[in-house]
Amino acid sequence: MSSTAGQVICCKAAVAWEAGKPLVIEEVEVAPPQAMEVRLKILFTSLCHTDVYFWEAKGQTPLFPRIFGHEAGGIVESAGEGVTDLKPGDHVLPVFTGECKECRHCKSEESNMCDLECRHCKSEESNMCDLLRINTDRGVMLNDGKSRFSIRGQPIYHFVGTSTFSEYTVVHAGCVAKINPAAPLDKVCVLSCGISTGLGATLNVAKPKKGSSVAIFGLGAVGLAAAEGARIAGASRIIGVDLNSKRFDEAKKFGVSELVNPKDHDKPVQEVIAEMTNGGVDRSVECTGSINAMISAFECVHDGWGVAVLVGVPNKDDSFKTHPMNVLNEKTLKGTFFGNYKPRSDLPSVVEKYMNKELELEKFITHEVPFSEINKAFEYMLSGAGLRCIIRMGA
Amino acid sequence: MSSTAGQVICCKAAVAWEAGKPLVIEEVEVAPPQAMEVRLKILFTSLCHTDVYFWEAKGQTPLFPRIFGHEAGGIVESAGEGVTDLKPGDHVLPVFTGECKECRHCKSEESNMCDLECRHCKSEESNMCDLLRINTDRGVMLNDGKSRFSIRGQPIYHFVGTSTFSEYTVVHAGCVAKINPAAPLDKVCVLSCGISTGLGATLNVAKPKKGSSVAIFGLGAVGLAAAEGARIAGASRIIGVDLNSKRFDEAKKFGVSELVNPKDHDKPVQEVIAEMTNGGVDRSVECTGSINAMISAFECVHDGWGVAVLVGVPNKDDSFKTHPMNVLNEKTLKGTFFGNYKPRSDLPSVVEKYMNKELELEKFITHEVPFSEINKAFEYMLSGAGLRCIIRMGA
Repeated sequence: MSSTAGQVICCKAAVAWEAGKPLVIEEVEVAPPQAMEVRLKILFTSLCHTDVYFWEAKGQTPLFPRIFGHEAGGIVESAGEGVTDLKPGDHVLPVFTGECKECRHCKSEESNMCDLECRHCKSEESNMCDLLRINTDRGVMLNDGKSRFSIRGQPIYHFVGTSTFSEYTVVHAGCVAKINPAAPLDKVCVLSCGISTGLGATLNVAKPKKGSSVAIFGLGAVGLAAAEGARIAGASRIIGVDLNSKRFDEAKKFGVSELVNPKDHDKPVQEVIAEMTNGGVDRSVECTGSINAMISAFECVHDGWGVAVLVGVPNKDDSFKTHPMNVLNEKTLKGTFFGNYKPRSDLPSVVEKYMNKELELEKFITHEVPFSEINKAFEYMLSGAGLRCIIRMGA
Repeated sequence: MSSTAGQVICCKAAVAWEAGKPLVIEEVEVAPPQAMEVRLKILFTSLCHTDVYFWEAKGQTPLFPRIFGHEAGGIVESAGEGVTDLKPGDHVLPVFTGECKECRHCKSEESNMCDLECRHCKSEESNMCDLLRINTDRGVMLNDGKSRFSIRGQPIYHFVGTSTFSEYTVVHAGCVAKINPAAPLDKVCVLSCGISTGLGATLNVAKPKKGSSVAIFGLGAVGLAAAEGARIAGASRIIGVDLNSKRFDEAKKFGVSELVNPKDHDKPVQEVIAEMTNGGVDRSVECTGSINAMISAFECVHDGWGVAVLVGVPNKDDSFKTHPMNVLNEKTLKGTFFGNYKPRSDLPSVVEKYMNKELELEKFITHEVPFSEINKAFEYMLSGAGLRCIIRMGA
């Protein structure tokens, strides 16, 4: 055990005291992990849109003061009672959603009646764990309903069970993926959320065949990760759809071969794509959250075999509308959460995809700042500059 | 070759002279098959809702006089030029939609990245053949745009390329499934349309696992065939949903274990089903064509792994509406046409399922009439009596 095990650790954390106000680096006290929890030393974290969304707290019940952050890489400092598969020193990725390995979701497997129960057929179907599914409203730990963070006795709320904008954090053991210790944490930390979400949407859900055509709606980090999935799967045409044509240059690095800007056309983008592809693309992946893009993504796939996968999170009052004949004509509509990856079971193999150079993560990392300059990462994201900004802790 | 090959055949056919008026048994002249066509002697035919729908011709451009009929079993009398895989004497099922075996649809196969390319993984994906896909507006043969039927020189229109309410008919060879000659045509004739549509929706598209729960919307012949598919797949709970509670008694024969009548509940039927099943059924199959039933069928499946399959044909102006979070929560929406069966490639094996007693067809056949009383079959269907009425030709 480390010398700090069982002790309160004092360390630096970036605290959001109020909605939309710059984070403040503070000395926080981090309590030891309780049963089924682990305390992690975070080495690298990155900023994702979801952090910004809850930090802005527009149209939500605000929960402050809070420590944000959910894309990160770190090392287990100590483990609470009952934790059997993680130990101090393990290299890990904390994840905003968990895998209890006991509930019906965690035990679900894809059914396609395969005779031989191969690797793909045994792949997991649902990752929406009953116990540890993401909960953005909860600012405390499951075990006792309390926070492990405090400043001079004042509790500071957690965020999606990860709160990685802190040198140390406490996380449920079911929300931690143990990975290859040889993997560089300053790169693979981006697999904690957005990149896996887009990548898995293509590889696990859309499953394009080699040589097929794939349309990607939205060329931000998640959409480009979906494009990266299409590139890895051997798609012959990757059509990017974005309202900002400037994104095309960057998108080319991810295999996007054609760009369609809906603003450049008088007809709906699904019709433009159908004309470009002799009736529709084989697969589409929607990564914007715009309801119109969702409908276009569904309607632009080919009848008979087309599959559309929704990734982007819609507004509360949105309604998905389409003529049912689009469904009857054998188009499939699917949705996915975290790319259908079960965090503990599946993320280690995604890290291996990076290690064996199948998956290219460097091109997602466009900025890097020391922890003391974490607010710069927010500025980059708010101005739309780049894809991912790595925040180096302890610097 | 038979003695009639190459000759016009005079025989009896039931002609619809006007929309909604009783059919009239007439002597018709049936021309020999042209290139890629076969002439069939029909032994048994049955009546399907689609015949009645186009016979009533409400809200359609009427096309009369016409010979209806598309569920049938017969024997090849003669084959036209270029037909290589059918010969006189072959036992066949004519089908309202075809399989050219050359287009992208006919060549499509399901992609699930299976390592071993097993039987199921190689199963066909799309059956919406570019050349021979159903066309309800066309009353003539593809080859020359003319009819093969006439009465004293007046052409009589075909219906969906089959027109089986005739002792002899001419069909494109791509719309004919050659089956086991030992199969009783008075039973397997019902596999030409409705029964395969429901059965395939479950077995080929919904694919319930053994022990799973399946909701079937609409307990007519197609819905009960979908239930039969669920029974064959080993579903542990088959929940029937129908506005007519009287249908439950018959439905029990098909493995339907529970009935929900939406009229008996104050809340939406999807909520009733979710409560009965701890969050939703594993699979649902919609066989009514009602837009509300389609939405309920989608929303009643469990998040994470639920799959809803639409079979029923909607109205022109319907709009399928749901909150996109239902999709994001990993529910899948699929549609199917003719149960995703490719007629020539797949129907022979469905006939074998009957031959080896896996599939029970007898319980679908509730009535039988001689050809001279074909209008009785219409009366049974219009009054909602029974499921399928077999019409015995030459009697």
